[in-house]
Amino acid sequence: MTEPDRMLGVLGGMGPLASAEFMTRLTLATPAERDQDHIPTVLWSDPRVPDRTAARNGTGEDPLPWLLRGIAGLRAAGAQAIAIPCNTAHGWYEPIAAAAGVPVLHIVDAAIAELVRHAAPPGPVGVMGTAATLAMRLYQDRLGSQGWDCLVPSEEEMRRLVSPGIALVKANRVADAYAPLAEAAMALAARGAKAIVLGCTEIPLGIAAGPALPVPVIDTTDALARAAVRWWREGTT
Amino acid sequence: MTEPDRMLGVLGGMGPLASAEFMTRLTLATPAERDQDHIPTVLWSDPRVPDRTAARNGTGEDPLPWLLRGIAGLRAAGAQAIAIPCNTAHGWYEPIAAAAGVPVLHIVDAAIAELVRHAAPPGPVGVMGTAATLAMRLYQDRLGSQGWDCLVPSEEEMRRLVSPGIALVKANRVADAYAPLAEAAMALAARGAKAIVLGCTEIPLGIAAGPALPVPVIDTTDALARAAVRWWREGTT
Repeated sequence: MTEPDRMLGVLGGMGPLASAEFMTRLTLATPAERDQDHIPTVLWSDPRVPDRTAARNGTGEDPLPWLLRGIAGLRAAGAQAIAIPCNTAHGWYEPIAAAAGVPVLHIVDAAIAELVRHAAPPGPVGVMGTAATLAMRLYQDRLGSQGWDCLVPSEEEMRRLVSPGIALVKANRVADAYAPLAEAAMALAARGAKAIVLGCTEIPLGIAAGPALPVPVIDTTDALARAAVRWWREGTT
Repeated sequence: MTEPDRMLGVLGGMGPLASAEFMTRLTLATPAERDQDHIPTVLWSDPRVPDRTAARNGTGEDPLPWLLRGIAGLRAAGAQAIAIPCNTAHGWYEPIAAAAGVPVLHIVDAAIAELVRHAAPPGPVGVMGTAATLAMRLYQDRLGSQGWDCLVPSEEEMRRLVSPGIALVKANRVADAYAPLAEAAMALAARGAKAIVLGCTEIPLGIAAGPALPVPVIDTTDALARAAVRWWREGTT
């Protein structure tokens, strides 16, 4: 088999552990027998990008100039498509895509493709993410337009469980992140969610640190990795 | 704390799972409370680099032009030091370092620093690596000059255990790689090795897929990650 001569760009660092994990999932999702069968990739891992949630709350610096700097770096390196393993950064998807000049995969579309692939049962889908991802309705509107109702954590659950769980992963305390993240997921399941979208790329890292949840989960890191492999093999997004 | 304004370049893809794992270990080795405490890094993961062992055996294309292309890409992206999470590629260290124009960390020096840090007991050190790494004596000469005798797998063990174990990781069959790699490590321990250097960045991935070995191991992926954190914090290599 002759591999396609395409290079993927990954705009990462948000956070850095999540982008490293994306690189691992991307590699494992690629059918390969040897190094040369894998996808040429440049990862721009810039953890200095200002906090996306703080910016959306009006309490932090605008991350867009940093995001566009990364896009320019990836383009200069030869990237022909770009994946962004950070859900919250997709709140700036339109200006990023307009500037990129190459296809930018959308992580929410990738998550929806996985819901379809897994034939998620009818009924509401739970979505966990950063406060900004939920406030920007990155998932609710797209899932709604495809016929899925969305359940999201309460403000109390966000403050007590989800936001601290994400912060623990960013501080390398992955094992400690399991309990709060799993509790939030199970609360959504108890309210009727038939599947849970882990709509922040820190969350799958925390959830992987303990026993598997007794409810189907959509891992957005894996979903984006699969979308990137599809692009690489087929040349279309 | 004000973080140093330095960017690390990683010349990876050899193989891609090993470089993804390097990114994970680098992140976990960095003292951090939030994204912005982590190390800005560009990873050039180009798995198309021709097979290093085949080139050293005279049966494959020279990888050096591909390695230098990666170095140029990393320099263009702003990298101020370069780490190469592939032991065999260090057979081309001198021309890479001469071309780089910035410090290039040496993975064997990083491994020796770990041996010193762990106060490895007197007595021979076992070294596992690709056939090319061993034939080029990347470890034997440097360890010897520091007073350590080296034990390496026999040709039969290389052919039956180590080379197939490395190839299984490159083909994403990580769990299958444990048995042959662990058998080779234990054979070195049985011959008197007091510690085992996992001198190929695929090997720690395979060894991590099963029970811990009952002999101290030096993981060269971790060793290089620690050396990179030291460079980033102190500005010297």
